[in-house]
Amino acid sequence: MKIKQDIKVAIDAVVFGYESKNSLSVLLIKRGIEPFKDEWALPGGLVLNDESLEDAVERELKEETGVTIDYLEQLYTFGSPNRDPRNRVLAVSYFGLVKPNHFKIKADTDAVDVQWFHLSELPKLAFDHQQILDMAHKRLKAKLSYEPIGFDLLNDEFPFSDLENLYMTILEKEIDRRNFRKKMLSFGIIEETNKIEKIGSGRPAKLFKFNKKKFQQLIVNDFHFEIKFV
Amino acid sequence: MKIKQDIKVAIDAVVFGYESKNSLSVLLIKRGIEPFKDEWALPGGLVLNDESLEDAVERELKEETGVTIDYLEQLYTFGSPNRDPRNRVLAVSYFGLVKPNHFKIKADTDAVDVQWFHLSELPKLAFDHQQILDMAHKRLKAKLSYEPIGFDLLNDEFPFSDLENLYMTILEKEIDRRNFRKKMLSFGIIEETNKIEKIGSGRPAKLFKFNKKKFQQLIVNDFHFEIKFV
Repeated sequence: MKIKQDIKVAIDAVVFGYESKNSLSVLLIKRGIEPFKDEWALPGGLVLNDESLEDAVERELKEETGVTIDYLEQLYTFGSPNRDPRNRVLAVSYFGLVKPNHFKIKADTDAVDVQWFHLSELPKLAFDHQQILDMAHKRLKAKLSYEPIGFDLLNDEFPFSDLENLYMTILEKEIDRRNFRKKMLSFGIIEETNKIEKIGSGRPAKLFKFNKKKFQQLIVNDFHFEIKFV
Repeated sequence: MKIKQDIKVAIDAVVFGYESKNSLSVLLIKRGIEPFKDEWALPGGLVLNDESLEDAVERELKEETGVTIDYLEQLYTFGSPNRDPRNRVLAVSYFGLVKPNHFKIKADTDAVDVQWFHLSELPKLAFDHQQILDMAHKRLKAKLSYEPIGFDLLNDEFPFSDLENLYMTILEKEIDRRNFRKKMLSFGIIEETNKIEKIGSGRPAKLFKFNKKKFQQLIVNDFHFEIKFV
């Protein structure tokens, strides 16, 4: 029994950014086409016949938002037969992170507007995009404890307090700053630079850097990154 | 610019079973059709227009192998444009577990044979199925430490030694049996039954049972299952 399959394949991207005001943001576009015209949604679209899924994500993000991402991984494939009112569309969803100096955005093609939204101030989202976003948020929270992905939400050089604030913001927990610093530095994957930055009215702070190469050497030798707060 | 999309959607299932001889097995079918005719592959096939991805997995497993699975979760979507020599086929892969008393199999439809293979004695696999299997194996190993999915590889009632052997087999590590037992029982999710089983020539062993309902109540209250071996 052979039936013509009529399922389209799209990608959707949940892109997170961390802003200096201790707030986690997500990148949304305002749809310029039906269905859900003029409503906010995750950036995304149909995959071209000859491009990989990851290339499709990067192309759609560039077209609709102008953003280039610093970290990308596949999240989950949403395949419920009725998730799109037009026809059946499978959404392979991705989860991306953007460093603050790559925050600049510009709407184009199917998007009439693009904006960073604080996670606490989200508009109603089109399709099942709220469900996709919730899953991505959960994944980000979990991963922060066992992979050093937080560095993809900070600029290459950062004051240590930024890293602390990032963890507290995303995990929604107070942390013991002294233990956190001790633990983080004990891994040997963060380096002091010889640069200093004056933040606001506070005293100047040393800038730090994540040594990705060192981290990749360590994991080959069974190193486990783990940050836990009781 | 609108181009007709020409991508098909399939599911593939990596189904693991744990046999009494301390060996982890995977369910493979011998393909009855081209491409890769007469070669071994993961069970799977195209998704029907009106069925969910999970329903497609269960249908294909039933059709090709006769197996009903006890645990199922989505693994990863493989979408490289050239993974199928015919045309572009996206594979949404799933990861399933089967209890020993559901091991009975029977090949049909696109499969001319079906067999449980020990992971240490795998044949060469069709398509990119070895890559999919490797990812599933890695996921199973990781999950065993932070989710009680091992119970879906044992019958409902089991001697405690089976649970120990399962962990040692899958994690490929010796464990301290006394600490393991203490830790496992401390969660309060395993119950003694009043049944006793005589295994081989050894002395009769008490049978235990996983209390799934209790576990589900506990996780609502932020309970974390965690089994680690240093």
